[in-house]
Amino acid sequence: MVSNTQIIFSKIPTTFPEVGEHMTIKHDTIDLEAELPENHYIVKTLTLSVDPYMRGRMRAAGTKSYSPAFDLDKPMAGHTVGVIVKSNNDKFKVDDIVYGIGHFAEYTHVPAQLAFLFTPRNEARESGLPLSNYIGVLGMPGMTAYVGLIKFGKPKKGETLYVSAASGAVGQLVGQIGKVLGLHVVGSAGSDEKVAYLKEIGFDGAFNYKTEDTNAKLTELCPNGIDIYFENVGGKMLENVINHSNNFGRIVCCGMISQYNTTNPEPIHNLIQIVSKRLRIEGFIVGEHPEMEADFRKDVTQWLKDGVIQYRETAAEGIESAPQALIDVLKGKNFGKQVVNIASL
Amino acid sequence: MVSNTQIIFSKIPTTFPEVGEHMTIKHDTIDLEAELPENHYIVKTLTLSVDPYMRGRMRAAGTKSYSPAFDLDKPMAGHTVGVIVKSNNDKFKVDDIVYGIGHFAEYTHVPAQLAFLFTPRNEARESGLPLSNYIGVLGMPGMTAYVGLIKFGKPKKGETLYVSAASGAVGQLVGQIGKVLGLHVVGSAGSDEKVAYLKEIGFDGAFNYKTEDTNAKLTELCPNGIDIYFENVGGKMLENVINHSNNFGRIVCCGMISQYNTTNPEPIHNLIQIVSKRLRIEGFIVGEHPEMEADFRKDVTQWLKDGVIQYRETAAEGIESAPQALIDVLKGKNFGKQVVNIASL
Ligand SMILES: NC(=O)c1ccc[n+]([C@@H]2O[C@H](COP(=O)([O-])OP(=O)(O)OC[C@H]3O[C@@H](n4cnc5c(N)ncnc54)[C@H](OP(=O)(O)O)[C@@H]3O)[C@@H](O)[C@H]2O)c1
Ligand SMILES: NC(=O)c1ccc[n+]([C@@H]2O[C@H](COP(=O)([O-])OP(=O)(O)OC[C@H]3O[C@@H](n4cnc5c(N)ncnc54)[C@H](OP(=O)(O)O)[C@@H]3O)[C@@H](O)[C@H]2O)c1
Repeated sequence: MVSNTQIIFSKIPTTFPEVGEHMTIKHDTIDLEAELPENHYIVKTLTLSVDPYMRGRMRAAGTKSYSPAFDLDKPMAGHTVGVIVKSNNDKFKVDDIVYGIGHFAEYTHVPAQLAFLFTPRNEARESGLPLSNYIGVLGMPGMTAYVGLIKFGKPKKGETLYVSAASGAVGQLVGQIGKVLGLHVVGSAGSDEKVAYLKEIGFDGAFNYKTEDTNAKLTELCPNGIDIYFENVGGKMLENVINHSNNFGRIVCCGMISQYNTTNPEPIHNLIQIVSKRLRIEGFIVGEHPEMEADFRKDVTQWLKDGVIQYRETAAEGIESAPQALIDVLKGKNFGKQVVNIASL
Repeated sequence: MVSNTQIIFSKIPTTFPEVGEHMTIKHDTIDLEAELPENHYIVKTLTLSVDPYMRGRMRAAGTKSYSPAFDLDKPMAGHTVGVIVKSNNDKFKVDDIVYGIGHFAEYTHVPAQLAFLFTPRNEARESGLPLSNYIGVLGMPGMTAYVGLIKFGKPKKGETLYVSAASGAVGQLVGQIGKVLGLHVVGSAGSDEKVAYLKEIGFDGAFNYKTEDTNAKLTELCPNGIDIYFENVGGKMLENVINHSNNFGRIVCCGMISQYNTTNPEPIHNLIQIVSKRLRIEGFIVGEHPEMEADFRKDVTQWLKDGVIQYRETAAEGIESAPQALIDVLKGKNFGKQVVNIASL
């Protein structure tokens, strides 16, 4: 028996979740000696991703959405990189590095019918890139940036791209891909340090939306108007951006994090501009665009290796820090992709 | 000299325009005997279209939009069907029936550099269809229905289409094309007579949004949710429809007439569903899709001749009734396409 501490979804939050109330730590164990049924395997979690959408899964089971509600009193789950420590499944060998949906736990016992949740990612051993990259820039958030900007933003060289939550897991990559594609790139973020980072990684303009006037800054930094808005936050920011949008502008709705932890959503008054400016406002979910995965992995791996893009992460240490790490993301305390390191190889 | 009464744009309105204040009647004359300079021609107005977008042109010259502001103290203009009464232009012969942008006036003297504003439409003489059809179901509003539903709605057989302002110039055709394409079609309108008409022309469901609860009616009449919303009104209606939209729903933003005559636009609170339902909300302007014109004319002419579609119009009589006819449209007093008959052939 070895320790298998887990994070349990223990109560549905109405606003921000709290540690010990909505997410509780359970000290459990797992038997790594027992025989595994056919096609089962056990993954030891190495690094774990906490992401804003998880807040959406902390809801009542009856409310439908694109990703299922977490089961109450069961471990939470998310994208992880792990290593196979035991396997009775031909597709997974002991010591394989895998990527997939694992428990918020030190270990995930994967039954046969869920075996598809992980895929081997052994190239991570030789790539020279940190393992955490595989849940960030090379994982779901990276793919989100790639799909959202390219497939939905339909960027044309010389256009202006504006990104909110621009220093985050998705945003920092959106902006850097924008520069690779020859766009004028502007971003906003919630602290001066984040803004400085954006300029460092090549954004043409950046501002702190908490201390500066968004309208004035958009006028200054997007003198030709906004052609593509990569929407991560929603609410008042969206209203502001619509006022600065060009004709035929694309508003790629990736997320609206400012509205996740409130029961009073912010109103928007200027949608009439959708007609007068012929805007396209469109939502997408990354998992529904697997046809772009091969190109995404090839391009982003290359850009990372070539130093064309950089990728900032904030790491929390140990499974017990996962709940707070998620809350940090929802409150904007993360700087770059928030990961939780659980164990090393 | 013959009478050439005109409607002059005389003042910029802030809410609803008024006759005699923002639109004034000017009793003028035109000389039909004088020689015309090269490539000039004169159109006698037969029937005139008044359309909601004209409210948008009654603005200050400095404010940019997709269609230019009317010039203060000059005649208003819009789609007309007319007959050439004098011409020094090879492309236009006396007695040609023409369609194009003419003055709100009994006659339009078209100078060489604006000669492109009209096109001959002599088939109107033999088609057996009323001339007014050529500014309605076979004109700009008809084309709007065709382009909006087909190109932007991307309808698939069996889907649910919901149309607001459904008995109007655009809406009644949208719904009937929806039926031709095999959709479940629901509409709303502002009076019980309009609702009865919608059922008569084949809508599967219809309701009076002024006397019934929109939410309850959408639940009842769109039991499988809404796949395509043909948006004509905006405001609270849009918010309601988003709540009833299916995943991957298309909201085709044609107009938002409920917001044209107010300085207090209605707020919308539920745009977060754009992400969770992967909605596409898109605006379009009919004039930017000329590639569909040939198909539009062919299909709609055929449907009309075959009796597959019907098209209701409300006619005002005489140029002096044009201002009130426009106000009627903005206030929902028209029933079907509002036209103004100026003269007969
Ligand atoms: N559609 C998809 O498939 C998909 C996939 C992944 C992510 N997403 C969405 O993409 C967005 C970014 O996700 P991420 O993983 O890259 O997270 P992230 O940006 O790394 O972290 C979230 C950031 O959002 C900002 N934020 C938090 N509360 C805010 C508020 N009230 N107003 C404005 N900004 C606020 C904070 O940055 P500041 O300090 O700059 O405020 C915070 O650091 C989220 O909306 C997420 O739901 C969508
Ligand atoms: N994008 C384009 O290229 C394009 C081209 C043409 C038209 N349009 C737009 O399409 C829409 C319909 O135009 P149309 O020519 O077919 O006009 P219409 O429907 O024949 O006439 C306007 C109708 O709008 C409804 N209405 C008026 N005020 C309203 C309010 N406050 N709330 C809800 N409904 C109201 C009324 O019908 P009820 O009695 O049912 O309320 C009225 O009869 C308009 O928004 C127009 O601007 C766009």
